[in-house]
Amino acid sequence: MEIKNPKDSLTVITDLVLPSETNPIGNMFGGELLARMDRAASIAARRHSRRIVVTASVNHVAFNKMIPLGSVVTVEAKISRAFKSSMEVFLDVWIEDRESGNRTKANEAIYTFVAVDEMGIPVTVPQLVPETVLEKERFEAALRRKQLSLVLAGKMKPAEATELKALFETT
Amino acid sequence: MEIKNPKDSLTVITDLVLPSETNPIGNMFGGELLARMDRAASIAARRHSRRIVVTASVNHVAFNKMIPLGSVVTVEAKISRAFKSSMEVFLDVWIEDRESGNRTKANEAIYTFVAVDEMGIPVTVPQLVPETVLEKERFEAALRRKQLSLVLAGKMKPAEATELKALFETT
Amino acid sequence: MEIKNPKDSLTVITDLVLPSETNPIGNMFGGELLARMDRAASIAARRHSRRIVVTASVNHVAFNKMIPLGSVVTVEAKISRAFKSSMEVFLDVWIEDRESGNRTKANEAIYTFVAVDEMGIPVTVPQLVPETVLEKERFEAALRRKQLSLVLAGKMKPAEATELKALFETT
Amino acid sequence: MEIKNPKDSLTVITDLVLPSETNPIGNMFGGELLARMDRAASIAARRHSRRIVVTASVNHVAFNKMIPLGSVVTVEAKISRAFKSSMEVFLDVWIEDRESGNRTKANEAIYTFVAVDEMGIPVTVPQLVPETVLEKERFEAALRRKQLSLVLAGKMKPAEATELKALFETT
Amino acid sequence: MEIKNPKDSLTVITDLVLPSETNPIGNMFGGELLARMDRAASIAARRHSRRIVVTASVNHVAFNKMIPLGSVVTVEAKISRAFKSSMEVFLDVWIEDRESGNRTKANEAIYTFVAVDEMGIPVTVPQLVPETVLEKERFEAALRRKQLSLVLAGKMKPAEATELKALFETT
Amino acid sequence: MEIKNPKDSLTVITDLVLPSETNPIGNMFGGELLARMDRAASIAARRHSRRIVVTASVNHVAFNKMIPLGSVVTVEAKISRAFKSSMEVFLDVWIEDRESGNRTKANEAIYTFVAVDEMGIPVTVPQLVPETVLEKERFEAALRRKQLSLVLAGKMKPAEATELKALFETT
Repeated sequence: MEIKNPKDSLTVITDLVLPSETNPIGNMFGGELLARMDRAASIAARRHSRRIVVTASVNHVAFNKMIPLGSVVTVEAKISRAFKSSMEVFLDVWIEDRESGNRTKANEAIYTFVAVDEMGIPVTVPQLVPETVLEKERFEAALRRKQLSLVLAGKMKPAEATELKALFETT
Repeated sequence: MEIKNPKDSLTVITDLVLPSETNPIGNMFGGELLARMDRAASIAARRHSRRIVVTASVNHVAFNKMIPLGSVVTVEAKISRAFKSSMEVFLDVWIEDRESGNRTKANEAIYTFVAVDEMGIPVTVPQLVPETVLEKERFEAALRRKQLSLVLAGKMKPAEATELKALFETT
Repeated sequence: MEIKNPKDSLTVITDLVLPSETNPIGNMFGGELLARMDRAASIAARRHSRRIVVTASVNHVAFNKMIPLGSVVTVEAKISRAFKSSMEVFLDVWIEDRESGNRTKANEAIYTFVAVDEMGIPVTVPQLVPETVLEKERFEAALRRKQLSLVLAGKMKPAEATELKALFETT
Repeated sequence: MEIKNPKDSLTVITDLVLPSETNPIGNMFGGELLARMDRAASIAARRHSRRIVVTASVNHVAFNKMIPLGSVVTVEAKISRAFKSSMEVFLDVWIEDRESGNRTKANEAIYTFVAVDEMGIPVTVPQLVPETVLEKERFEAALRRKQLSLVLAGKMKPAEATELKALFETT
Repeated sequence: MEIKNPKDSLTVITDLVLPSETNPIGNMFGGELLARMDRAASIAARRHSRRIVVTASVNHVAFNKMIPLGSVVTVEAKISRAFKSSMEVFLDVWIEDRESGNRTKANEAIYTFVAVDEMGIPVTVPQLVPETVLEKERFEAALRRKQLSLVLAGKMKPAEATELKALFETT
Repeated sequence: MEIKNPKDSLTVITDLVLPSETNPIGNMFGGELLARMDRAASIAARRHSRRIVVTASVNHVAFNKMIPLGSVVTVEAKISRAFKSSMEVFLDVWIEDRESGNRTKANEAIYTFVAVDEMGIPVTVPQLVPETVLEKERFEAALRRKQLSLVLAGKMKPAEATELKALFETT
């Protein structure tokens, strides 16, 4: 079984916020950012799997900070955990102050992609071995998120979601 | 306190999938659908609150079905629960067979918006009273989703997420 | 011969006016509205005929009211009369006040579509039976518009345009 | 009173049909052509009036010929008649065969624009004196079209539409 | 060998600068103008060669003047010299004052295209015979630019670039 | 005088080629790539200068390789030399094979930007000190390109272009 690290799939899109990408109050339109993140995440999933990939779900996106017109926005996507044929992609979004050059975190998002063959049938992907502390944290949390997603979709009984259950039982 | 029903915010976008909105394998590009849903959801939130609204988070989007080029896609958005100044919006996405006219469900999504004043300060929104069985189910589940979101963000202790905790304890 | 009612083809596109869709003085760009109406009308014609449809003509569009940036615009399209293989589609465009929620009529438009087979050959479409008073008025007027269109194109002699002729003779 | 000729407002847009501008069967999307014509017509109206201009109506557009992907499309717009503050713009659309270079007529359209001041109040425009035979024909027909438009809008009684009435009486 | 004049390939795109095409300080976005010029130049090259053409290089574009939102921009493209299978296209960009109608030069650009067959293999193009004084000047300079381009790419020795060498030796 | 290195301005845009960005033969449209490079280059110039920057010229772009639909394209921009208020930006464009992950060079481009204050007046920028062998080569060549650009624009006599003159005399 082939093994890859998160850095192998790192994908960066640094781009401007142009007037055509803003909402009526002059900040980056949410839908435009969702679309940029989808493109970055799909490239990361493709770099991990070397396969055709399709968006399976958007698990969570928090819009913590408004992104004004003219900002330089950097979207960074990396695989956070690989399952059988699906991959969780974690995205960090940064904006950069023009004068000081300081970067601040604007958003985080989690997307899931599935690798498929030419007929659309899911195929196995390489496993992921996290390296940094942050990568390891996100790798662990990915399993809880997967269980949660299955529970909410009615495909797993809460009692079987051992990782998730522990979270509530230990408190 | 003003009260509204989900039907007061119902927003419908029926539109085609044009070639500029497809991915390389000829299906609707995930990012394009995310953007359309964001626009529909923001109009629903605005109809409920009659205020400026901003995207706070995308809680869950499941892409269950590919949507081929040339499809007629209908996005329906309705408020599923109102909190103090935030609103959960539930979206159903349908595609329609050209020859038979039959509609099939393609996707579901949950977005959260916050109502703000001109200065960007959150303001109180009307409460929501669900009417149909489905609206009531979604209204109940919205509270669990909110607790979950707070727990995952580290803003609520698992022990305080009573609705969510019950889900695991009763099993 | 299959028969359909106008409500069977009702198509609604409710969407925002974003900055990329405005003209230099901050109102919705005419060409953008024409394009949205074309998409709505083509879906209505497809729902009536269950066939591939192509735009045959735009018979009349009156831009009565400017539509400012940030407006919520609702385009409603319904078949107003079916001929052999062509269909007249009547569109009503509404804008909605954010604070009061009141809708006002912004525009009206009439488009004509033709149903074709895979080779582009026109095919017969179901007939239309209008139901409401407004639908009946539009159904009647559609015949005069068709005659007028044929007269202006030199494909019908004014003397043969009986419906239209009556309009001038009775006065 | 200033006087201008149609050639003073001639505006030409020659452009390609790119994949993002086609419908699902590979021809130029009707809405895209309507938008290009709106831009060309608005420039012609601005060149005639040297004022801010807004689209008042689209009086007639006939889509006689499909325009395939990759075509070179030329839109030519010229003022056909000036009224007090409104201007009728006549558009001819041509496509060009890549190998032979031959041009064929694809569409015709008639748009009306109104010249306004900074406050949106209509202002007087220069009169138009047609020069060629075709320009004279279009100039004459423009008056009938204007009467027709007023009659259909209920702003003129059919009996007062003398130019139009004559058309039916003489036959 | 077929011979053509520059006027045979003259291509004009007159269009507005819309809000979606401006940078954050309200002037036309450089990338948008580069794209419009690429489309105009490719049509000119196609009109000269009657072949499929692909962009080979952008040799020089000088942005001398900012082009504000709402401007009417005219891009004019003409072949300035034909080589074996490549063609140099010279572009002039003008903007027009709304009130006076005066045109001023905003930019100049030089693009090179290659004519290819269906397999992508370069094919011979007609030769170009310049007519006006300006066309002759540009025709002469095109050879120096071609030599320069070859020298800079390391495909020609400076000593062989006779036209270019003369420029420096005679001084 | 502040000094910066090329790596301080490195800007990366990795993105897909979507159907809306291709020409009629299914490769990335030249104008779209020019626009992406303009955005990447303007961010690099802004990172070097921490000022508002405007495109001054596109000095050379070679399209060596067609970029097919669905490709992953990486644009990398770095300042190659700083003059008084202008900066030369060198761009490298790579495409990546989906199956092997191998990157191949597709294009190179050179853009020039000028840093300005709020009134559009040019301002001094930090000097650039190249570090790698490739950066040093590009730094040297930038001076010859600047002289060449001045000579071609008639703003410098060939005899004064000492760097450039040497190139021809030594051969």
